[in-house]
Amino acid sequence: MKRIPKKAVKLFLQQNLKIIYRILSKEIGEVNILGIPKFKKLPRHIAIIPDGNRRWAQARNLEKHEGYDSGIVPGLELYDICVKLGIEELTFFGFTQDNTKRPKIQRKAFVDACIISVQELSKCDAELLIVGNTNSDMFPKELLPYTKKTKFGKGKIRINFLVNYGWYWDLTYAYNNSDKEKMVENIASSDISRIDLLIRWGGRRRLSGMLPIQTVYSDIYVVDEMWPDFKPEHMYNALEFYQNQDITLGG
Amino acid sequence: MKRIPKKAVKLFLQQNLKIIYRILSKEIGEVNILGIPKFKKLPRHIAIIPDGNRRWAQARNLEKHEGYDSGIVPGLELYDICVKLGIEELTFFGFTQDNTKRPKIQRKAFVDACIISVQELSKCDAELLIVGNTNSDMFPKELLPYTKKTKFGKGKIRINFLVNYGWYWDLTYAYNNSDKEKMVENIASSDISRIDLLIRWGGRRRLSGMLPIQTVYSDIYVVDEMWPDFKPEHMYNALEFYQNQDITLGG
Repeated sequence: MKRIPKKAVKLFLQQNLKIIYRILSKEIGEVNILGIPKFKKLPRHIAIIPDGNRRWAQARNLEKHEGYDSGIVPGLELYDICVKLGIEELTFFGFTQDNTKRPKIQRKAFVDACIISVQELSKCDAELLIVGNTNSDMFPKELLPYTKKTKFGKGKIRINFLVNYGWYWDLTYAYNNSDKEKMVENIASSDISRIDLLIRWGGRRRLSGMLPIQTVYSDIYVVDEMWPDFKPEHMYNALEFYQNQDITLGG
Repeated sequence: MKRIPKKAVKLFLQQNLKIIYRILSKEIGEVNILGIPKFKKLPRHIAIIPDGNRRWAQARNLEKHEGYDSGIVPGLELYDICVKLGIEELTFFGFTQDNTKRPKIQRKAFVDACIISVQELSKCDAELLIVGNTNSDMFPKELLPYTKKTKFGKGKIRINFLVNYGWYWDLTYAYNNSDKEKMVENIASSDISRIDLLIRWGGRRRLSGMLPIQTVYSDIYVVDEMWPDFKPEHMYNALEFYQNQDITLGG
């Protein structure tokens, strides 16, 4: 029997990820729904920093760049939980301009993971928007169509995805593009609303340049586990933390 | 014997705080110095959010506003530790424009605590700079002289103090004041450098509008204890956390 090349298997898996994921999640579907706890208060807008893919790979004796693939399905699982909970807006940290300084093989791996993730999300019910600097070789052409807010399926949830995003680029964008009196209102990411809860996987306690304006008053929750080890419980723990916060916005 | 009015005692204590603090700290001075651990790596610039004064007061059956007084000496103690460690720059979150929405009695209490803190620091070796919106009734006149960077004693450490600071005010400042191409470079807080480590007391996991540009890549350490319960160990734990961080700035 002829052996199927590894690359073809990978491609097949990637292209049918949604179907495979659906089959898998259907099997555990009921457990999933019953397992979602009730919360007193939910954040309107959640931001996700899916960090730790490289450390996850290294811990498994893989090359650093081999960790990014395993970060795709967790994103879809998280999407499902947010839709079930009725979260209005979700923002994923894809990659930043600073991240593109990393070795080319890693860059390709995380860019590919972003492309697949966005394509998979476009097969779900979601209003998608990619925010990032498109005037750069680092911005993947495949994602250009998503830089205009588009409703897929029944919409249900707003999803922003940062691709080749840079905080400096974001803030200085208004200079060339609009009324200079309204700088903060006209930043490149002005379509992204204030973030209530930011959840970061991978143990680091920092924002890493994610949307400085929208995170001014965000509550930050850090999951010590790496992103590819995502479990729904991480999310529930973050929401449990959030529901007990006294949100005053400084007042 | 005539009883000394409570108010006079308070005034005496406040005005002689430095002397009293020095006497107290001399008694435990040697322990303090010997007690400072060695660190592999130190942050160049530390930011402090001294939160939890009101909750601290409530837990002691005091009125909320009565907690701020007890936040002054911890700041001086922290200053001492930073000087001994050779930290180059230290930034204190005094209060923000958002904080001024609180009841007047609280406002007066935290403004007074800021005034005393800055005056006490000006008796130490420090290069002081207050950053905040002075075009407002909320900015205390007593602190106007400190809005120009001034060296006191031998300098030794740069200390920034945010007084009536606002992130929106900070970012939009450049519009009226300088070359519009250099917005990020010309924000109101442009004299304050990038923050390496931000330490927040009082358990909240948020930035609360503190210097969004300078905190873009800061490592954040949260102390669950309230600020008036400051112990040098909180600081050492934060520095121990920091020395083990892999600082890549996204690269």
